[in-house]
Amino acid sequence: MTTQIPSCNRSGSWLSSLVPALDWLVHYQSKHLPGDVVAGVIVATLLIPQAMAYALLAGLPAQVGLYAGMLPLAVYAILGSSRFLSVGPSALLSLLIVTEVTVLAEPGSPRYLAFAIATALLAGVIQIALGLFRMGVITNFLSQPVLSGFTSAAACLIALSQVKHLLGVELPQTQHLHQRLAELAWALPQIDWPTLAISTASVSLLLAFQYLLPWLLAQWRRLPLVLEQSLSKSGPIIVVIVGTVSVAAFDLGEPGGVSTIGEIPNGLPRFALPEIAVSEALSLLPLALTVSFIGFLENISVAKSLAAKRRQKVDSNQELLALGAANLAAGVSGGYPVSGSFARSSVNFNAGANTGLASLVTVALLGLSALFLMPLFYHLPQAVLAAIIIIAVFGLIDFAMPRRLWRYNKADATAWLLTFLAVLGVGIEKGILIGVTSTIVLYLWRTSRPHMVVVGRVPHTEHFRNVQRHDVETLPHVLMLRIDESLYFANAKHIEDFVLCAAAEQLELRHLVLICNAVNFIDASALETLADLQTQIQDAGIQLYLTEVKGPVLDQLAGTEFLKQLGQDRVFLTTQEAYEKHRTA
Amino acid sequence: MTTQIPSCNRSGSWLSSLVPALDWLVHYQSKHLPGDVVAGVIVATLLIPQAMAYALLAGLPAQVGLYAGMLPLAVYAILGSSRFLSVGPSALLSLLIVTEVTVLAEPGSPRYLAFAIATALLAGVIQIALGLFRMGVITNFLSQPVLSGFTSAAACLIALSQVKHLLGVELPQTQHLHQRLAELAWALPQIDWPTLAISTASVSLLLAFQYLLPWLLAQWRRLPLVLEQSLSKSGPIIVVIVGTVSVAAFDLGEPGGVSTIGEIPNGLPRFALPEIAVSEALSLLPLALTVSFIGFLENISVAKSLAAKRRQKVDSNQELLALGAANLAAGVSGGYPVSGSFARSSVNFNAGANTGLASLVTVALLGLSALFLMPLFYHLPQAVLAAIIIIAVFGLIDFAMPRRLWRYNKADATAWLLTFLAVLGVGIEKGILIGVTSTIVLYLWRTSRPHMVVVGRVPHTEHFRNVQRHDVETLPHVLMLRIDESLYFANAKHIEDFVLCAAAEQLELRHLVLICNAVNFIDASALETLADLQTQIQDAGIQLYLTEVKGPVLDQLAGTEFLKQLGQDRVFLTTQEAYEKHRTA
Repeated sequence: MTTQIPSCNRSGSWLSSLVPALDWLVHYQSKHLPGDVVAGVIVATLLIPQAMAYALLAGLPAQVGLYAGMLPLAVYAILGSSRFLSVGPSALLSLLIVTEVTVLAEPGSPRYLAFAIATALLAGVIQIALGLFRMGVITNFLSQPVLSGFTSAAACLIALSQVKHLLGVELPQTQHLHQRLAELAWALPQIDWPTLAISTASVSLLLAFQYLLPWLLAQWRRLPLVLEQSLSKSGPIIVVIVGTVSVAAFDLGEPGGVSTIGEIPNGLPRFALPEIAVSEALSLLPLALTVSFIGFLENISVAKSLAAKRRQKVDSNQELLALGAANLAAGVSGGYPVSGSFARSSVNFNAGANTGLASLVTVALLGLSALFLMPLFYHLPQAVLAAIIIIAVFGLIDFAMPRRLWRYNKADATAWLLTFLAVLGVGIEKGILIGVTSTIVLYLWRTSRPHMVVVGRVPHTEHFRNVQRHDVETLPHVLMLRIDESLYFANAKHIEDFVLCAAAEQLELRHLVLICNAVNFIDASALETLADLQTQIQDAGIQLYLTEVKGPVLDQLAGTEFLKQLGQDRVFLTTQEAYEKHRTA
Repeated sequence: MTTQIPSCNRSGSWLSSLVPALDWLVHYQSKHLPGDVVAGVIVATLLIPQAMAYALLAGLPAQVGLYAGMLPLAVYAILGSSRFLSVGPSALLSLLIVTEVTVLAEPGSPRYLAFAIATALLAGVIQIALGLFRMGVITNFLSQPVLSGFTSAAACLIALSQVKHLLGVELPQTQHLHQRLAELAWALPQIDWPTLAISTASVSLLLAFQYLLPWLLAQWRRLPLVLEQSLSKSGPIIVVIVGTVSVAAFDLGEPGGVSTIGEIPNGLPRFALPEIAVSEALSLLPLALTVSFIGFLENISVAKSLAAKRRQKVDSNQELLALGAANLAAGVSGGYPVSGSFARSSVNFNAGANTGLASLVTVALLGLSALFLMPLFYHLPQAVLAAIIIIAVFGLIDFAMPRRLWRYNKADATAWLLTFLAVLGVGIEKGILIGVTSTIVLYLWRTSRPHMVVVGRVPHTEHFRNVQRHDVETLPHVLMLRIDESLYFANAKHIEDFVLCAAAEQLELRHLVLICNAVNFIDASALETLADLQTQIQDAGIQLYLTEVKGPVLDQLAGTEFLKQLGQDRVFLTTQEAYEKHRTA
């Protein structure tokens, strides 16, 4: 039996690693066609309403969302290393855009649009640069608690931003969470009841499609699986149709009635660069950095989780290049920043997509609707789109995570909570910085107070274990200590204190053994502390020994003043040797 | 034989731990008196010129330095946990004051003086607060390379600031290093030759006292050791006398001639609080934080290095309280921020000080000179004080350190260089922040790419070692990996990739053993990655085992979903057990 683990060394030519689509384009198998077409259609029915909704969330015209779902999706299908990932507008990135660009330009103005498009271009350049420098690993420095706390908080912020559309009230643009909540409370008497009715109906319908329908269909067991799944995922397009028809039929729309998205020009995106000065582009740089980082993070998480299901390997640097190219494509075709969508990608995957062709089918359908169907959305209520957004982001809020973290590890739970509160309280960019800083500080704090134990020998073996956990032998003139951490500046003094204390308490002590099997490196500060320790111990008539020093650490110590003074004969391969030698001495 | 290691549990009453001086005050032994008196006198002859010199360096009147050397020194002698430490004006803190307060007030103005005094008060409050919250460990987070790079750069800056006094030229106050160097170059034609002559003579005399005299006296071997040491340390007071007498005798002084320090009023410091508004005090807060941190760091390093010589223990929280009280004392008695001085403390120690009484003798002598001797310093040339400062800080510049670090560990050497350049280039506060950040980033980078090896059994033993370093046995269907690092967010993905790659390469693999003896903790992110890894490995028909998991890690894993899915029987106490069990299977 051979292993089925995705190979770690990329096979294939230079060209096919740069353009992974060549694999399936050149040898396209006709058996893949039905799955690809069906998946492409289903994703399109999901993407059309989502793309318009997210664009409105970002403070942009609805068609900008469609544009962001066309060329970028096609580009990613060619360059991406995941065959199922569906790239396009994202709720998170839309929130980032509306929060940060509003500070720089009036929402709805041409300058605002130009800034959003320019952000896509800048983010694309940054991602490509990071990919070329093979910096795909940077996302590893974002811990899971920070990521989860951030996602939950961002989802709350997104949901909150949609409440006004559900209620049909106007709210002034405010910066802080408490202001927004206060404004919302004040606006409650102005609720537009027809809007609220549409919202309630839309949310109920979406929930029914998401939870009730799959259960019913599963009971019924008559439909093929693909059809079952397509029906369950068709909630958004159904509420769009029902909502639009209702408003048109009962003449509930504007002026004076339910807010609708109004006129959207038919047509395909035009190729153009946003008109923006260099100084303005510079002021967008922090936002573009955040967008490129968050977008990549979203993308790589989705890609990895899908790849794991089919035992495929995702190359994070190739993903950076592909997503960067997709953002550039968004920037030159009037779209705004994109990333991989978890919801649409898993629909694509479950609906049977086999290759990137599924995404190309989606793009074609989006193009057709942009060309011909836009006037049909004239009466589409904003409340319906708000309901779609809220249901989409609701699944991102994960309050089970902090509880699970708390049981496992208080530090991780603290990082989750700090990130969550910081993102809600001071905003996305600062919030994520606070979260990252908190995980690093907590990590340093933990490694600065390492676990250190006195060990003894498990009788009749060569194993040495904690005297407090195991029944072990010890000797009055030998003290054996195990330090469960690398020695570095933040813990060197702490370790020195512990060793000196333990030594001072054992009055007959003559031999002190430090077991170093968990010491993975010794930095210069710790080396100096170790040398101090050796001098102090030596002056007190006690001999210091090191055992089980790892190869790389020993290599590093070779030639240092410390090892010269200690003497090569005081370093033992095993603790057993040191123990036997000084058993009687 | 019993050990002579300082006990780690503080003995004695609550009161004697708060006022360590009670130990020697209550039971003062008369045999200690000669040593204390001699040391007190010698330190005074060193402190008087240094205190005036450092005050001038800080942009303050010379007597402020003397005030800072009186009450604070007495307060520290009572409260400090080190018996030899000599607290008072410091070159580093003086540099901090002149750099930061100059931005806020005109040097020489009453407001400038009030700011300097208020900084001492604020720093005192901060240090006492840190001490009460037992935050003495914070200095552990400053690594040795950062500390050394910082000290060397600060010493260069201090020396540079004195060059104008050596040359007798006037220079405008500039912020940046390159400007200062340029100004200095431009000012070269204006050199005052009599001043340069005095500088050269002073520097030569100081060097002779520091290096030549001890050697000569050691050759001669006629003097008692104490007298030898006193003579060697009397350089500063001698050049002060010679310089002052020369200027007076040959009438070289101002106006028009050599710059002298001029009139200093006789008298003791008055008790008063600086007149300063709350908003001004707030603007001093960043400086006060830096001063309290750097001052404490200087203090604790000196205290620890002296305590080590006499096997005494320094309590870092008590040190914070004592230094904080000393700074408060400086603030209420017209002084400026103080810390322990390495030079004066080691003179105190070597001259035979036994208790804090030596410091009280020094304080009495300083008081007498402040009362009666000030007019004698009227003709004291600034060049002499500049020479004293330069010789004092010269020893702090340590270019051997970066070379040693480079040989030991490139990351530590990089941190040294970054800190050194940053302090020179962008200033002390930002420089030290850059240094600290760089060590943390380098540490994360190192732990994010841990050392991982495939191991095999050393024949006929229970030991498992790196297959590349040792001649060991391996099996085709068993892969044993040792991960030399705790598993946490920054390295989890990297480790997963390595394990999957290693597994993919061994085609007959059925059992994968992870040896965890160097894994000191597993954070929540890594736990999730581990669970993913387990699923992937399992799906490929490979069994995962953990061996030598440390107690605390096992406690943490208990009850997690990961351990449930893995199964308790897949965790072995020793690698040997796992190896034996699957040897033939």
